[in-house]
Amino acid sequence: MRNEIEKGFRELQLHICQALELIDGEAVFQEDPWNREEGGGGFTRTIENGRIFEKGGVAFSQVHGPVSEPMKKQLNLEGESFFATGVSIVLHPKHPRHPIIHMNVRYFELDGGATYWFGGGIDLTPHYVDARLATEFHQQLKETSDVYSADFYPKFKDWADRYFFLPHRNESRGVGGIFFDHLDESCGISKAQIFSYCLDLGRLFPKAYQHQVASISLEKASEKELNWQALRRGRYVEFNLLHDRGTKFGIYSGGRTESILMSMPPSANWEYNLELDATSEEGQTIAFLKKTHNFI
Amino acid sequence: MRNEIEKGFRELQLHICQALELIDGEAVFQEDPWNREEGGGGFTRTIENGRIFEKGGVAFSQVHGPVSEPMKKQLNLEGESFFATGVSIVLHPKHPRHPIIHMNVRYFELDGGATYWFGGGIDLTPHYVDARLATEFHQQLKETSDVYSADFYPKFKDWADRYFFLPHRNESRGVGGIFFDHLDESCGISKAQIFSYCLDLGRLFPKAYQHQVASISLEKASEKELNWQALRRGRYVEFNLLHDRGTKFGIYSGGRTESILMSMPPSANWEYNLELDATSEEGQTIAFLKKTHNFI
Repeated sequence: MRNEIEKGFRELQLHICQALELIDGEAVFQEDPWNREEGGGGFTRTIENGRIFEKGGVAFSQVHGPVSEPMKKQLNLEGESFFATGVSIVLHPKHPRHPIIHMNVRYFELDGGATYWFGGGIDLTPHYVDARLATEFHQQLKETSDVYSADFYPKFKDWADRYFFLPHRNESRGVGGIFFDHLDESCGISKAQIFSYCLDLGRLFPKAYQHQVASISLEKASEKELNWQALRRGRYVEFNLLHDRGTKFGIYSGGRTESILMSMPPSANWEYNLELDATSEEGQTIAFLKKTHNFI
Repeated sequence: MRNEIEKGFRELQLHICQALELIDGEAVFQEDPWNREEGGGGFTRTIENGRIFEKGGVAFSQVHGPVSEPMKKQLNLEGESFFATGVSIVLHPKHPRHPIIHMNVRYFELDGGATYWFGGGIDLTPHYVDARLATEFHQQLKETSDVYSADFYPKFKDWADRYFFLPHRNESRGVGGIFFDHLDESCGISKAQIFSYCLDLGRLFPKAYQHQVASISLEKASEKELNWQALRRGRYVEFNLLHDRGTKFGIYSGGRTESILMSMPPSANWEYNLELDATSEEGQTIAFLKKTHNFI
């Protein structure tokens, strides 16, 4: 089944890129193929300076080989050989009123399939929180998840709340979404059904972003908005480099740096001891991020 | 002796700030006092939008209390109570031809002084490497170190080469400097002498930076230079959030986020798969950083 999953994820990558190009209307993805010495490789697709997307990437990879020492240590893996394939996405929009979005679906197996699991997640990071749009995003995730199990959305929504969180700021990265890992048939649906769920989430991804973009009426970004976007991007950098397990594992285990760090924003700012007017939109966004919300 | 060290480090902070204000000529430091619930606190001094310094901080802290679980785990500490005091500095200059500089001196003791050690370092991160100025920087460090021990400079220079290194980029952060940790009288000089060495390094710090600034003749920064500065600052962010032990320990053990992350640049950029002309100044800087150099 691993070949089918690999093929499905590669097709998903191409489908998503096509859909995102339609949303952008100007920029197109550049494809960068790479090989991994120990086995496998990938196609990293990036987009930049578009009408909607300032910088982003949709990466597919399939890697396999012996389980290395850092993998054993960092992932607690009990096995000799592994196979992993997945699609990872981060998009940084040009306009501060459009949200940053992230998605990942992945399949992992040990020793030729003796053990396997799926993982994944989608989460939304608005520079300015809009509670209605956050709710609509969560409704889309719930609808897609409910097709497979009524347990998925509530469980994976809580998991995302815990995962996409910056403890050192006591802030959520954004308005959350879903996150899951180590999903196998013990969750109550078959392996083929979990794979189908991952593909459905992947197909939802561009639709969900399109819905956000279509719902936001834009004016020319002000300097204040652009500065705020840069500060929010700084928080995104902090999360990815300090806390994101995928990034840390990739970096420490000698993964392909350019593909791992394609998640970095085009630019980011930091200010010492930023003080915000609690009644401003910026202050309200931070206040929102300091609490957990049930959107549905 | 801990009170003397604490007092000496606080005075060192004030001395350095005064000297840096003279170098800048326009901006002045703002002081932000803070308390640590479990014991101690600090004075974080920051400077911004100056003639020379765009964003920087000179932080003093003195913290003490019981050794917590994360400290035991992350620092391998065998003791019940600790006392730590130190001065930490990162300065991001406005002009891309001026280098980023970092300094830290710190004193740590366990169980009322049953065990103690000093640590510290100074390193220089030019956006554009100038080999002559790097050599002069190293000469100053060697002169100050040689007063105490002929072993210090070569040993601590190598330590800095290993420490200020980004394995995921196979690049040094900059032109290095010195780094040391766990220094006690077993190094061959007394505790009082090690303390005096730390103070001398602290006093050298503004002189060393002044020498760099005075040796560089500036023209108005071009857009190309400013873009390169932003990319080099991105590497600085990567080092500090992914690899710097002080930053990681501070963040994971619940330190004061604003003081820890005062090391962040005002802004930073990332580009996917940056390609440089090997003959350009930018390309030559990266080529330089990919090798280890003996400056003296």
